[in-house]
Amino acid sequence: MAHLMSTSCSIKISSSYRPCGQPLNQDRTVLPNSFTIKTSKSPFKRLVSKGHSAGRSCVVLATAAPVSKEVSANPRSGSDRSPNDSSKSQRVMVIGGDGYCGWATALHLSNKGYEVAIVDSLVRRLFDHQLGLDSLTPISSIHNRLRCWKAITGKTIELYIGDICDFEFLSETFNSFEPDAVVHFGEQRSAPYSMIDRSRAVFTQKNNVIGTLNVLFAIKEFREECHLVKLGTMGEYGTPNIDIEEGYITISHNGRTDTLPYPKQASSFYHLSKVHDSNNIAFTCKAWGIRATDLNQGVVYGVKTDETSMHEQLYNRLDYDGVFGTALNRFCVQAAVGHPLTVYGKGGQTRGYLDIRDTVQCVELAIANPAKPGEFRVFNQFTEQFSVNELAALVTKAGQKLGLDVQTISVPNPRVEAEEHYYNAKHTKLIELGLKPHLLSDSLLDSLLNFAIEFKDRIDTKQIMPSVSWKKIGVKPQTVPAN
Amino acid sequence: MAHLMSTSCSIKISSSYRPCGQPLNQDRTVLPNSFTIKTSKSPFKRLVSKGHSAGRSCVVLATAAPVSKEVSANPRSGSDRSPNDSSKSQRVMVIGGDGYCGWATALHLSNKGYEVAIVDSLVRRLFDHQLGLDSLTPISSIHNRLRCWKAITGKTIELYIGDICDFEFLSETFNSFEPDAVVHFGEQRSAPYSMIDRSRAVFTQKNNVIGTLNVLFAIKEFREECHLVKLGTMGEYGTPNIDIEEGYITISHNGRTDTLPYPKQASSFYHLSKVHDSNNIAFTCKAWGIRATDLNQGVVYGVKTDETSMHEQLYNRLDYDGVFGTALNRFCVQAAVGHPLTVYGKGGQTRGYLDIRDTVQCVELAIANPAKPGEFRVFNQFTEQFSVNELAALVTKAGQKLGLDVQTISVPNPRVEAEEHYYNAKHTKLIELGLKPHLLSDSLLDSLLNFAIEFKDRIDTKQIMPSVSWKKIGVKPQTVPAN
Repeated sequence: MAHLMSTSCSIKISSSYRPCGQPLNQDRTVLPNSFTIKTSKSPFKRLVSKGHSAGRSCVVLATAAPVSKEVSANPRSGSDRSPNDSSKSQRVMVIGGDGYCGWATALHLSNKGYEVAIVDSLVRRLFDHQLGLDSLTPISSIHNRLRCWKAITGKTIELYIGDICDFEFLSETFNSFEPDAVVHFGEQRSAPYSMIDRSRAVFTQKNNVIGTLNVLFAIKEFREECHLVKLGTMGEYGTPNIDIEEGYITISHNGRTDTLPYPKQASSFYHLSKVHDSNNIAFTCKAWGIRATDLNQGVVYGVKTDETSMHEQLYNRLDYDGVFGTALNRFCVQAAVGHPLTVYGKGGQTRGYLDIRDTVQCVELAIANPAKPGEFRVFNQFTEQFSVNELAALVTKAGQKLGLDVQTISVPNPRVEAEEHYYNAKHTKLIELGLKPHLLSDSLLDSLLNFAIEFKDRIDTKQIMPSVSWKKIGVKPQTVPAN
Repeated sequence: MAHLMSTSCSIKISSSYRPCGQPLNQDRTVLPNSFTIKTSKSPFKRLVSKGHSAGRSCVVLATAAPVSKEVSANPRSGSDRSPNDSSKSQRVMVIGGDGYCGWATALHLSNKGYEVAIVDSLVRRLFDHQLGLDSLTPISSIHNRLRCWKAITGKTIELYIGDICDFEFLSETFNSFEPDAVVHFGEQRSAPYSMIDRSRAVFTQKNNVIGTLNVLFAIKEFREECHLVKLGTMGEYGTPNIDIEEGYITISHNGRTDTLPYPKQASSFYHLSKVHDSNNIAFTCKAWGIRATDLNQGVVYGVKTDETSMHEQLYNRLDYDGVFGTALNRFCVQAAVGHPLTVYGKGGQTRGYLDIRDTVQCVELAIANPAKPGEFRVFNQFTEQFSVNELAALVTKAGQKLGLDVQTISVPNPRVEAEEHYYNAKHTKLIELGLKPHLLSDSLLDSLLNFAIEFKDRIDTKQIMPSVSWKKIGVKPQTVPAN
């Protein structure tokens, strides 16, 4: 049923679309009931559409043309615009902008006056379907999310749906949107997912490494001044017995000294893919003069930001399952539903953590203070360190205040990792750029617990326990039975 | 025209096959004029054959069944055999066994009494066709090479033709051959090739990383005691301003100490692919108990080994072109043909070098002294350090002795690399295992120069100059015009 779309497509909102109601923090805004896509540059040759031929509804499945781009009264001049031209707002492409961190970041940047485009294949939603998982929070389609954002704020976020591993698609997004900065969240981001079976391990490394290579080539070819802000992970470092620095370490050895990339000891095929990315990016900074910031992010907790809180159609996803859920968020959901907190092994595993409100702040700081041409800059993006046992104790205490009976159990550790270790990671560079951390507080935990209680009926308790073993991964494809 | 082959296939040598003549160093041996493939285990379901239906000639294009395996008088018992059983010879799978180092290694191991199988997709030969390149030496087909080896020595080397990125193929080779050790040369191994265009960069990383991941999964699933001997490169380290250790470095930092992976600074997409491999392998050693040796090899020179010298049908390839040729071999060919030696930039680039006779010796030492389960062992595999200027001076002197007029020119460096730098890399671990180096001598240079002079008429001087630029690589696919 797929066919090539003509160069102009009117998307009318189908009758099943529920318009945004009263914004939570703003005046009621009129929701536009139709969108028109027009562009003079994109040939639309890769557009594929499905739906009623009369145009009642039109869902664009794969396109390099902006899906939600509206005709502007003052179309931008295009190629004569130079990056970082302060007289005009910066144009930021958020790859993976439909995901947990990407969605919050896209809205935050749009709210702060940046021109934003989301590039996403939506494959994260497919993973949920395939594995029988779901976000704790009900999340709207990306199309409805963006319509709602437009209705509430008057701001347009452009949307390009497609796979950045397809270089033809990526080229068209670059030439159409002309980004000054690219924020790259567009990777398979779960360590357990990468350890399900051979095909997921291979997918994770291929998808992440090739996608990032394509972004680097697109910048070199089409937007050489564009600043790449790439999401890495603190997990790249592992748990060395010395202090973790931000990307580099000065080593004195046999009477000589050099500052070298900090040694990496990643512990899943996912974490390894991020190490591969970091190495590839560092090389292109040196060889081609790419300007890049690698944000080695800690574990993110929380769900609300100023922007996602504006309306329920803007709500962010919250993962609590054994594959995509991360420690603190998962514990709050477990507490809400009366499931014991699942500590893996001894629980001494210590990592850096940050509030999702700080994720969006950090990314904005990186964009506002770009790396120099040829610079490969590494920031450790977290605000506090906790062990798993410390988090369990904090959630237990906060739960008890709300009248919950919170128990903790130790489950066999599905991962291969040190359960008691030294951990001291530096994280001063973003503070120096102006980060004002939202430290983990009782009120945040209360809010997160209450949020989990609100959506308690959506929780599938079968998804809570870890199901993926680092040691048992095999070559046989794993599927989820329906029963 | 492809069809599934039956479970028994008689390969008769076609009339175009020229039998091995008098072996150079051995008595005349009768060349068998037919080979029979039989196996009780392999279902042959992936065999694809082309040729005369009457069976006059039968070229197996893609198979997971051994192409050159003969019926043995004493068929091995198969699954009841344990790896490293000293009462029987070790079974070594050489992936990439049709290439420059792989071919020499496969013959050497076979000559030393190991049971050897070559696994190769033959894609290296395709690269030559696509880029309009050729080996200085005429090389026989892999089938004729193995027939000749059998004729001369009586030893059979099994052959599996296929792509290790195809896991189904790789699984069948593991289950059919049951290796005790895997020597993995099967990667795209040229830095310039990886810098031709985007698609070659992506191919190099995908091919190398996924191929190695598949080998790791195959070992875990089918042969968990199997020792992986993986070819890395000294280029993974780059040129740090401190001594290069063998894989690991002990760092004291802020009053604490740890031994960590040596920091890597690779300088092409090819070199980066090897870094990615090293990181992936290290993780699987820790998580799954894989036993692995990473041989960080220097630049290999020379062409003859004891085995490849036995007959001209066993000759190894010798690359002199700007894509696959490496420094010393290329200089000797340039001197032979009267082309100035092409020094890139200032010529102070210093690297580790070794004779190909030491490559085969090192691999055998690694196999004979395997890593322990869970151990990720790194050896720096080279014997001497030279700068490019030092090599040019040595070749000039040796050429003059042979009456050649050898000039040197500096050409703009197509790479992005330091042209003057500190370099001191450790390489004691293979010496401790018993390596007796063939240091670069006047007689070796004479021999290599005379070899180049012998095949002088085959040299295409248009292939000598560097054609690939690290800075100019783009997204447009590069092809070689016919003129």
